[in-house]
Amino acid sequence: MIAEILSTGDEIRTGTLVDTNSAYIAQELEGMGVRVLRHLTVGDDLTELAAVLQEIGSRADIAVVTGGLGPTSDDLSAEAAASAAGVPLVLDPEALRRIEGFFDRIGRPMGDNNRKQALLPESAVRIDNPIGSAPGFHLLIGKCRCFFLPGVPLEMKRMLRESVLPTIDTLLGSGARPIRIVTTLSSFGYGESMTAEKLTGFDEAFPDIRLGYRAKFPEVQIKLYLEGTDRLKLEARSLEAAGWVKERLGGRVFSDRGESMPEVIGRLLVERGATLAVAESCTGGLISHWITNVAGSSRYFLSAAVTYANEAKCRLLGVSPEILLRHGAVSEPVIREMAEGVRRMSGANFGLATSGIAGPDGGTPEKPVGLVWIGVSTQENGTSARSFQFRYANREANKQMFAMTALEMLRRTLCQNS
Amino acid sequence: MIAEILSTGDEIRTGTLVDTNSAYIAQELEGMGVRVLRHLTVGDDLTELAAVLQEIGSRADIAVVTGGLGPTSDDLSAEAAASAAGVPLVLDPEALRRIEGFFDRIGRPMGDNNRKQALLPESAVRIDNPIGSAPGFHLLIGKCRCFFLPGVPLEMKRMLRESVLPTIDTLLGSGARPIRIVTTLSSFGYGESMTAEKLTGFDEAFPDIRLGYRAKFPEVQIKLYLEGTDRLKLEARSLEAAGWVKERLGGRVFSDRGESMPEVIGRLLVERGATLAVAESCTGGLISHWITNVAGSSRYFLSAAVTYANEAKCRLLGVSPEILLRHGAVSEPVIREMAEGVRRMSGANFGLATSGIAGPDGGTPEKPVGLVWIGVSTQENGTSARSFQFRYANREANKQMFAMTALEMLRRTLCQNS
Repeated sequence: MIAEILSTGDEIRTGTLVDTNSAYIAQELEGMGVRVLRHLTVGDDLTELAAVLQEIGSRADIAVVTGGLGPTSDDLSAEAAASAAGVPLVLDPEALRRIEGFFDRIGRPMGDNNRKQALLPESAVRIDNPIGSAPGFHLLIGKCRCFFLPGVPLEMKRMLRESVLPTIDTLLGSGARPIRIVTTLSSFGYGESMTAEKLTGFDEAFPDIRLGYRAKFPEVQIKLYLEGTDRLKLEARSLEAAGWVKERLGGRVFSDRGESMPEVIGRLLVERGATLAVAESCTGGLISHWITNVAGSSRYFLSAAVTYANEAKCRLLGVSPEILLRHGAVSEPVIREMAEGVRRMSGANFGLATSGIAGPDGGTPEKPVGLVWIGVSTQENGTSARSFQFRYANREANKQMFAMTALEMLRRTLCQNS
Repeated sequence: MIAEILSTGDEIRTGTLVDTNSAYIAQELEGMGVRVLRHLTVGDDLTELAAVLQEIGSRADIAVVTGGLGPTSDDLSAEAAASAAGVPLVLDPEALRRIEGFFDRIGRPMGDNNRKQALLPESAVRIDNPIGSAPGFHLLIGKCRCFFLPGVPLEMKRMLRESVLPTIDTLLGSGARPIRIVTTLSSFGYGESMTAEKLTGFDEAFPDIRLGYRAKFPEVQIKLYLEGTDRLKLEARSLEAAGWVKERLGGRVFSDRGESMPEVIGRLLVERGATLAVAESCTGGLISHWITNVAGSSRYFLSAAVTYANEAKCRLLGVSPEILLRHGAVSEPVIREMAEGVRRMSGANFGLATSGIAGPDGGTPEKPVGLVWIGVSTQENGTSARSFQFRYANREANKQMFAMTALEMLRRTLCQNS
């Protein structure tokens, strides 16, 4: 079964508003085994809207249309649907009663133009709107069952869930529907193209699995799409393919359950009953921000010191002024003192520290922009430090790369110390 | 001149990713007087992609296509473009040289499959990518000049601005083209619909100016589009309208030159020769991250203490354990001690502190999720503290709202202390 999604309205057409409805609808449809072929957007133009509906009617089996059901003169969806289906608009008395009831409930007078919202294409089936004034409807245009919903996300989502999806489910019938499984492997360390190269041969080894990539800088997600009728078999096959990918990427896959890197760090710390403190120079608070985005992070995250000024490194982390002066802030001796200092002074089990040059200024021939030192200090196995050199022109990209590399170094330490 | 916008990729088709590129491109095109007729989305499917390109080629004069230029097997845009235009793919030696140069610059080996990115349709004109590996290109399909850009927003925007829009400008012809001026007012404090309501009457007062909104949560940008032939007159008129908007929004406009809030804070601190230190509890490092995203922030940003644990509030900020125990971390006495403590201990001129409940857990009837205390401590005018209650369900939204509100409070203090 093929679906298309149409969003309408000049605000979306001209880009004043980003259309988030279509992505939501696509996820719901794909999740129930309906293949979404296209999304379309057109403005508040009767001719164009009717033309697009007829095109969709010749291509798709079902369509979900959002927007254009309001009371104003640029709300044209019902008229366009009637025109595309070749039927007149007629007053739906029950729709009118419900619109009147809505205004009663919110205690506002109903405008004359709200009456227009009860005019539906003659062949349409009404979809009640439990939280707004605009009723939806569905009807056949060409070979396509078209569902019309309001553009307001809250109303659209409720009506989609409560009315549209159950109706589509009935249309799909109860026959042998394929089961779909998607496995997400999150990796860090290779870019998208290097990842793809490392996975050359996947299609031959697993011709029954579709492979997808998504670069969420600085991580790369690998997606495995499986389809079949036997869930247990699909899951076993997915596990096999995930193992193949992990081996090819040599430890760079940090989650096979869709977790973010900070979520993995949090899980590992909780599993070990351990706590963390962070000392950030060049990452400027980004590591702490990521870690505290995870709900429940207060269980393992004690504190961070963002020590931009050298004086702060000494005062908050106990870095020795002599060592700072002799080696500079971006150096192995200083990063070791930062990692150890933040762990010791906070009483945490693990200390993580960064010091580097995010740019665009501040680089020297010996210590160029993109250089970062990272230190991980543990209670039981001492402190390790490593430097990395990145070559991004962009300050924010450097910060993200530094922060992700630091978390990856901590993750590997946590996995060794288990 | 009629334009269409096509975004490609299974991630967008299936709704895993919300397409923000199309709205951006639509705004830019409409802003230069090109009418956008439709947006379309299709997945990584060669046949479907080529079919859509041919349809667009029969309808539009120009098209901007995003995505599908990467190195992997599901990157199919060049192949589809060649097929739709009826030309072969050929190696572009200069594109290859530039891809090699890119990998040289970032210090990573170039994969074999990156070579594929240098294969362009025979009739195509290359569009260089200054910050990524994927070159773009444009060519004629049917009657339509189609511009192909990467899907990565940063690369897309840069190539659109530097190459595509100037080319379209040339296509539009050099006749007596009107001058266009766009003024961006960045505001914080009202949502998009409240902002629009406050600006009711603008169209009557300034019928010659088009008003646009862009919600960049948690800020709202107000755009004023002017068109005419006399630049000085347009600029004066724009200034007048900007003043009208600022008055209606009562001090909530924080920049009329496109700055971000952290950039405004940085500028104000530099102008005053002052320094800042931050104490973050519920914002977890986000304020520091934002501030250090600004190049040159080391001139005024000394340090931050992200004090999640209570013990850290006492140790790093000098908060009294008794006051913490008596009033709880989210309270006026504690936020005052945090703001004063971080200023005093760091030696900064200004101290900014946050303590609140970002959720989803940790709320109580007296201190519900969304409550935040913010403190600003100054050397000369003492310390002020205020609480705010937000009602977002989402932890990240709360963190962003808390951080922005704190920076806004600091901004107002800086403006008073000038």
